[in-house]
Amino acid sequence: MAQRSSVISVGKMRCISCRDEYQASDAGTCKECYEEASETEEELKREIEDLKSKISFLTWSSPVDDHHRPSSASFTDVLLVATDDQSPPVPAHKAILVSRSPVFKAMLESEMEESRSGTIKISDVSYSVLRSFVHYLYTAEATLDENMALDLLVLAERYQVKHLKAYCEKFMTSKVNGENALISFAFANQHNAKHLMEASLSMVMDNMDKLTKQDEYKELVEKDPRLVVGIYEAYLSKQVNTAAVATEYLPV
Amino acid sequence: MAQRSSVISVGKMRCISCRDEYQASDAGTCKECYEEASETEEELKREIEDLKSKISFLTWSSPVDDHHRPSSASFTDVLLVATDDQSPPVPAHKAILVSRSPVFKAMLESEMEESRSGTIKISDVSYSVLRSFVHYLYTAEATLDENMALDLLVLAERYQVKHLKAYCEKFMTSKVNGENALISFAFANQHNAKHLMEASLSMVMDNMDKLTKQDEYKELVEKDPRLVVGIYEAYLSKQVNTAAVATEYLPV
Repeated sequence: MAQRSSVISVGKMRCISCRDEYQASDAGTCKECYEEASETEEELKREIEDLKSKISFLTWSSPVDDHHRPSSASFTDVLLVATDDQSPPVPAHKAILVSRSPVFKAMLESEMEESRSGTIKISDVSYSVLRSFVHYLYTAEATLDENMALDLLVLAERYQVKHLKAYCEKFMTSKVNGENALISFAFANQHNAKHLMEASLSMVMDNMDKLTKQDEYKELVEKDPRLVVGIYEAYLSKQVNTAAVATEYLPV
Repeated sequence: MAQRSSVISVGKMRCISCRDEYQASDAGTCKECYEEASETEEELKREIEDLKSKISFLTWSSPVDDHHRPSSASFTDVLLVATDDQSPPVPAHKAILVSRSPVFKAMLESEMEESRSGTIKISDVSYSVLRSFVHYLYTAEATLDENMALDLLVLAERYQVKHLKAYCEKFMTSKVNGENALISFAFANQHNAKHLMEASLSMVMDNMDKLTKQDEYKELVEKDPRLVVGIYEAYLSKQVNTAAVATEYLPV
């Protein structure tokens, strides 16, 4: 009995991290590498804390958050107006707009109408989307749902706010599923959102059997048949490649 | 011979991280924990990338950086003037000053002289320190040496820019040595910089044999004898504690 337990203790070790015993075949790292990895993790966490504190310093109190308290929107020198409804204007700082968007920069640093009047009219956008847009320019934060992400992406593209576009695209990519893949693909194509396009095309191809049965499919054939051709070409090319790989492993 | 090599292979494993062989006695983690740790590290690195991109979005082009190119300092609405020399004023945005410093906020949001004139006079500061100060308010970045850190810390305290004060204090703490510990201690005490005070007091106590020989010591006794008493009290209390710990381990 004593001998048997001694054999086990030679074969088994205790993991420094989870404290469980494990066999030599399940060995991960040596002690030195484990200690180095722990140090690296601590360093990375410290760096994250530093970066977060920097972000909190650099973030502005957005004039949109507190529009009931005028003092926090102090020294604003421009108004943004959603032209499609009767909503109140959203106050902002020219300097922020110019710093975040090359389109606003061109608009406000030249002798254009917006620069003279101090009012920027924004069409095809609701008040709540405009507020979220302005809020993002000050804070790099937005509360997204699928509609908001879509609307903000369009606005971000129009005003060339790359950071916001990427933020919305990442969110939308995480929401792609069999149901919305085709619409997402068409949207991504229209707004030049590459990651979303890849993710949704891949999802469309995983559900080819349902493709032609969808209403959205018929609409897309009407509206943009070339894009539908693109889907079939991608699908065919994938099938050919899969077949080629399979053939490689066939006995000659 | 065959048997011997088999014995070695049972006792040794190969580290997944550094690829070296190690003995069971040098074992770190099991494979599962190693893989989890690698994933965590990847996640932390991705988070750092995201935070850096956010910082780059939120950072302004400072009007100080490019003061030869007026367009990048566009829409500035206030001037900061170092009153002690004949240097040019530093342009800035009221909204930035208000957002970064409660002192500027009180100054500019009330009917004070600075608010009416659009000029803020800053005394006891050189042009280069003022420029660095303004640059930091826009970017959370400063190039420090020991003098600059000291001057910026004073300014940060005066205008209650906590983030900058902490930044300078961290730098100064890293530079404390036997030579400058006493001056650092007096400075930290004067400007209520707690971490710097602790680090420099600890360094002073590590060099008590040289304390009374320093010119700075004589000056400090003249100028602020209470502070010198504080050093002696801390030293005495440390000695008593050390003695108490040592006594605990003495045989009864």
